[in-house]
Amino acid sequence: MALLEDLNWRHALKGYDTEKQVSVEDLGKVIEAMRLAPTSSGLQPFKVLLVTDDETKAKVASACYSTNEAYVRESSYTLILAVWNRYTEERIDGAFTLAAKERDLPMDRYDNYANGLKKVYVEQQTAGENFAHIARQAYIALGFGLAQAAELRIGTTPIEGLDVNKLDEILNLEEQGLKSVCLLTLGYSDEEKDWLAPMKKVRRPLEDFLVEL
Amino acid sequence: MALLEDLNWRHALKGYDTEKQVSVEDLGKVIEAMRLAPTSSGLQPFKVLLVTDDETKAKVASACYSTNEAYVRESSYTLILAVWNRYTEERIDGAFTLAAKERDLPMDRYDNYANGLKKVYVEQQTAGENFAHIARQAYIALGFGLAQAAELRIGTTPIEGLDVNKLDEILNLEEQGLKSVCLLTLGYSDEEKDWLAPMKKVRRPLEDFLVEL
Repeated sequence: MALLEDLNWRHALKGYDTEKQVSVEDLGKVIEAMRLAPTSSGLQPFKVLLVTDDETKAKVASACYSTNEAYVRESSYTLILAVWNRYTEERIDGAFTLAAKERDLPMDRYDNYANGLKKVYVEQQTAGENFAHIARQAYIALGFGLAQAAELRIGTTPIEGLDVNKLDEILNLEEQGLKSVCLLTLGYSDEEKDWLAPMKKVRRPLEDFLVEL
Repeated sequence: MALLEDLNWRHALKGYDTEKQVSVEDLGKVIEAMRLAPTSSGLQPFKVLLVTDDETKAKVASACYSTNEAYVRESSYTLILAVWNRYTEERIDGAFTLAAKERDLPMDRYDNYANGLKKVYVEQQTAGENFAHIARQAYIALGFGLAQAAELRIGTTPIEGLDVNKLDEILNLEEQGLKSVCLLTLGYSDEEKDWLAPMKKVRRPLEDFLVEL
């Protein structure tokens, strides 16, 4: 029942205690959970960008809407999920070269599979179709990061409310072939500011969420 | 460290033991973890469709590519993540009516916020833009489901390799305003068939995954 307890404990923090800092060790665990997330064909088509200093926080905050900018400025850390703008032959090869090496397999072990992926992703799909697929993968990692932070009783706010194009420009992500999709801020709740904390967690009842076919 | 152990234990099952059945209690925990997943503005824009009987499994399997059809037929259960085809005023209102009721707040408490969402999602965005955003949310729940199953040492295979349009047709999802995005099969590994089990888990090294800004 441990994970379910963690997930029930979790809520989107609406105010951070600026005096209380998440430890580097705990931060490392959250990032490790995200790194372990499964992704389609194991391509791991994204990076996690870590923001720690006030100057970079201010830059990132400047792309955020409404109260989200305060979460970035006042939390301990902000993680930016930055995904591949599209699949390329080189990126696909990189993933399978790594897999073959790590597993001590012949370097051509994954050629057929990789070629199949290249045909679909690089030859047939548009960059937009690629991106829609890639962005989803990052959200599995977002889920793992949220769960890991909750286990450690670290507060989090998953943030989509920002101008991702503006952020990409600020951080020169386009020239790295990346696009930001969401942020995850980490820290501890300030009870006075965190108005959501005392409210009941609301989820659709099971009978409206689950359909037995 | 419990969650990290679970996530390291997890791999995509490549063969199911047809003699060993996941308990209804454990299945319930996996679904509950998915129900607890946070979603953008708390809209929970998806349902989980549960497949238990052989006849429905065969139908779902018929839309799957390659070996995925065996995972659906041979696992204990298949969960279909079926997302809203698009946001509507009614769906948005439904979420905030529930939130106001559950929290014992005035029924107009979320009107301003809901109207802002309707303006963006219903008036400004295309159905395609809606869908791209909605599908991502379901992948947070996919992450939670994978993590919960791993904690219970239940094997899982997240499956994108299927003809989602065909599945939607088979299950009449379109007329319910839903679109399938992926499957999650649950069960126990058959060591003889599960060729991935003994292989090393491969992830990009931290220095290639994490960028400190």
